Amino acid sequence: MKNFETMNPETKRALTHARNFRERHLEELKAFLRIPSIGTQPERKAETEAAADWLAEAMQEAGLENVQVIPTRGNPLVYSDWLHAAPDAPTVLIYGHYDVQPADPLYLWDTPPFEPTVKDDYIFARGAADDKGQTYIHIKAIEAYLEGGAEGGGRLPVNVKFLVEGEEESGGHNLSLFVPENGELLAADVALISDTHILSPEQPAIVYGLRGMCYVFLDVTGPRRDLHSGSFGGGVDNPLNALSHIIAALKNKDGHIQIPGFYDAVRPLSDEERQLLAKHPFDEEAWLSENGAPKSWGEPEYTLVERLGARPTLDVNGIIGGYTDEGMKTVLPARAHAKISMRLVPDQKPKEIYEQLRNYVQQIAPPSVRVRCQFMHGAPASITDYNIPAIQAAAAAYEQVFGREPVYIREGGSIPVVGLFQEHLGLETVMMGFGLPDDCIHSPNERFYLPNFYRGIETAILFFYEYSRLSS
Amino acid sequence: MKNFETMNPETKRALTHARNFRERHLEELKAFLRIPSIGTQPERKAETEAAADWLAEAMQEAGLENVQVIPTRGNPLVYSDWLHAAPDAPTVLIYGHYDVQPADPLYLWDTPPFEPTVKDDYIFARGAADDKGQTYIHIKAIEAYLEGGAEGGGRLPVNVKFLVEGEEESGGHNLSLFVPENGELLAADVALISDTHILSPEQPAIVYGLRGMCYVFLDVTGPRRDLHSGSFGGGVDNPLNALSHIIAALKNKDGHIQIPGFYDAVRPLSDEERQLLAKHPFDEEAWLSENGAPKSWGEPEYTLVERLGARPTLDVNGIIGGYTDEGMKTVLPARAHAKISMRLVPDQKPKEIYEQLRNYVQQIAPPSVRVRCQFMHGAPASITDYNIPAIQAAAAAYEQVFGREPVYIREGGSIPVVGLFQEHLGLETVMMGFGLPDDCIHSPNERFYLPNFYRGIETAILFFYEYSRLSS
Repeated sequence: MKNFETMNPETKRALTHARNFRERHLEELKAFLRIPSIGTQPERKAETEAAADWLAEAMQEAGLENVQVIPTRGNPLVYSDWLHAAPDAPTVLIYGHYDVQPADPLYLWDTPPFEPTVKDDYIFARGAADDKGQTYIHIKAIEAYLEGGAEGGGRLPVNVKFLVEGEEESGGHNLSLFVPENGELLAADVALISDTHILSPEQPAIVYGLRGMCYVFLDVTGPRRDLHSGSFGGGVDNPLNALSHIIAALKNKDGHIQIPGFYDAVRPLSDEERQLLAKHPFDEEAWLSENGAPKSWGEPEYTLVERLGARPTLDVNGIIGGYTDEGMKTVLPARAHAKISMRLVPDQKPKEIYEQLRNYVQQIAPPSVRVRCQFMHGAPASITDYNIPAIQAAAAAYEQVFGREPVYIREGGSIPVVGLFQEHLGLETVMMGFGLPDDCIHSPNERFYLPNFYRGIETAILFFYEYSRLSS
Repeated sequence: MKNFETMNPETKRALTHARNFRERHLEELKAFLRIPSIGTQPERKAETEAAADWLAEAMQEAGLENVQVIPTRGNPLVYSDWLHAAPDAPTVLIYGHYDVQPADPLYLWDTPPFEPTVKDDYIFARGAADDKGQTYIHIKAIEAYLEGGAEGGGRLPVNVKFLVEGEEESGGHNLSLFVPENGELLAADVALISDTHILSPEQPAIVYGLRGMCYVFLDVTGPRRDLHSGSFGGGVDNPLNALSHIIAALKNKDGHIQIPGFYDAVRPLSDEERQLLAKHPFDEEAWLSENGAPKSWGEPEYTLVERLGARPTLDVNGIIGGYTDEGMKTVLPARAHAKISMRLVPDQKPKEIYEQLRNYVQQIAPPSVRVRCQFMHGAPASITDYNIPAIQAAAAAYEQVFGREPVYIREGGSIPVVGLFQEHLGLETVMMGFGLPDDCIHSPNERFYLPNFYRGIETAILFFYEYSRLSS
């Protein structure tokens, strides 16, 4: 670490503490990973709650205060804080989740998902990267300051509040109820989340933008029942043909969405941002060979990196209608169903986008079928100015620990909590992740790269230091 | 019957015989219907063969000769003939089928499907109308001539050959092998089939045209596996969106098929034929209220009756792709599958149409997906000149029995045996049906209108007489 000698004594002591206790930290992480906190499975309710209790105890032991396991109608939230930094020091709200994805199919795991196993430089277990390992990093970084201080009476350079939920993998419903009602408890200057991945062990990355979502069901119905296509074909419109016409009219072959007004609210990409995104070392050939598509595709006037994160999309997620089993049946189907989702970018509003789509579909649908649109889910996109002190602090921390400047990424998916914090707490979020693209999260053999676990603790330590410095 | 008194003595005697033995004919039909000859079910193999044997015996008793139960790799064929008509008399090849559709769901039947039950003017049983009842009509018409003759030594005014199969409901594979190899045995002047329905008890109808078929599977594949629509949307083409574009390009919103060359071989409708079809008393409102479609639809320059029988179609019979269960999943699917069938009219050739579709699809498919077309099934359309003596004979017979001229219909579906006879035996077919639209064939509570059973026998008797007269 290049600047180690010039750092302030508290940070040095914290880094030294983190390095001295790596073995113990790994054992603790294993204990956390052994709890099968599959938040979506009712039969795992007790274990999921046990994970919350375990986490509360770990926070207590790390020196965090005001530790609370907060019951909800679903899985509990865990809250704690440490608010004794210097009077002008900023407050960081750290978010994580202790629930994990289901582990099936079990037979595809090389080692049992809830018996954490270290092999080479990886720890294998469900939740290792998503998100127990990454959440635990912050507890250990805080501990390093608080326990590593002179005579154990250490201090953090910033105030911290810690909020960990148990329903991230199932939609975060109770968090979305809790946050708007607890603005004072959660008041902070910035939010910090480690639940994303960097590009490679050598290349850190900061996600500063996330796409939003508008999910719609489209149902086209025609005759009352499936008809014989010989007896009725040519006289009755076919819902599957009509649905295809509607879907084809939503997006043209170049990837431009044809819904009137769809792009009106899209915040344009500045030249500066396009230059920033162009620094992303994206290997298109490797990417294609991994996903198997014949070629990349999309709006020709944008780069692939821009299209994957900074441009809105419209994808059909599923269609079913008519006869779909083996072989042939000469049916003119009564109905056709499509699931359609749009990834949104700032400043598109999900409900407005839905209204635009519905109006357009009603306008283009022929009178020979009935069309029904349903709004299923919406989440706004989010974007954070990458010039704010907290992001620059994360960049400085990454650079010192990984030896390389991070790249800046606009992620194509959604992390709803970021929008929640932005809307109800007025907080920007720093997404400082330590996962890797091949961690197999949500899949069998999930793993976490252990050097990133340790680097993560050091990066978090440095983030607190750099953030206090840059925001003063 | 208006001309009864002026008929020749043989025909009068046959009609009288048919009327005298109605009760016995009904009992015999019940015996035929009691045999559960579900040709597609291996566990009904013995019963299906028993139906063939029963039929052979019934033919023998009716006076038919050369009766044979001809084994095939599937269900047997039943053949018989009577070839002693006057030297210049024509030969009629009568076709029927003794296999029936499965009867499930059984709980929807009001009376057991294989216990024929007479209620009001109907006989309820699986196969009553399709096609045991209609096949049996011809055996009884032949019997009426042969048994009803002076001192039982009666004669038919025409030669007849009778061929009944046991695989009509399962594709008729073995018949399609038998016919081309037995041109001499089956040589005739015209074919006669009673396996269609008339419009109402008062309105007979002659089907003189049938549409053909070209059935195609279309598979669109993109990435190797289902992808996360957030991480990959905008960069990878979506097979479901691409499939929708392809399908939308196949047929425009007016019902005009856009495949280059598709209409080239379509035999135009003459003014005379359009006038003939315009006589069809088609109640569009009743038709819509029965099928439940919001409105009728199709090529605006053709009438509904023309579009339903005399114009080619393209219908999507099924689509499946992506996530199709309850709820949402944000998937960019790896593949999409569509089943597409085209109803063809003379003189479109199924294989040529398939080639045109495949070439067009390959031409319009974007390079960002892979598209595979598969030819699944083809059958040519068929049409018979409604001015030939055999059709005019059927019209005259219908008119005398039903008291009303028949309407002429081009049926939208396919009866493959008509094309088979046309191609391999050079025979035109008279489709002289006695079913009704609400017979519930292929459904629970299949029934046959008994007055039509008796009228059918008389119509067949008169057909033989009129045909011998008109073709001399």
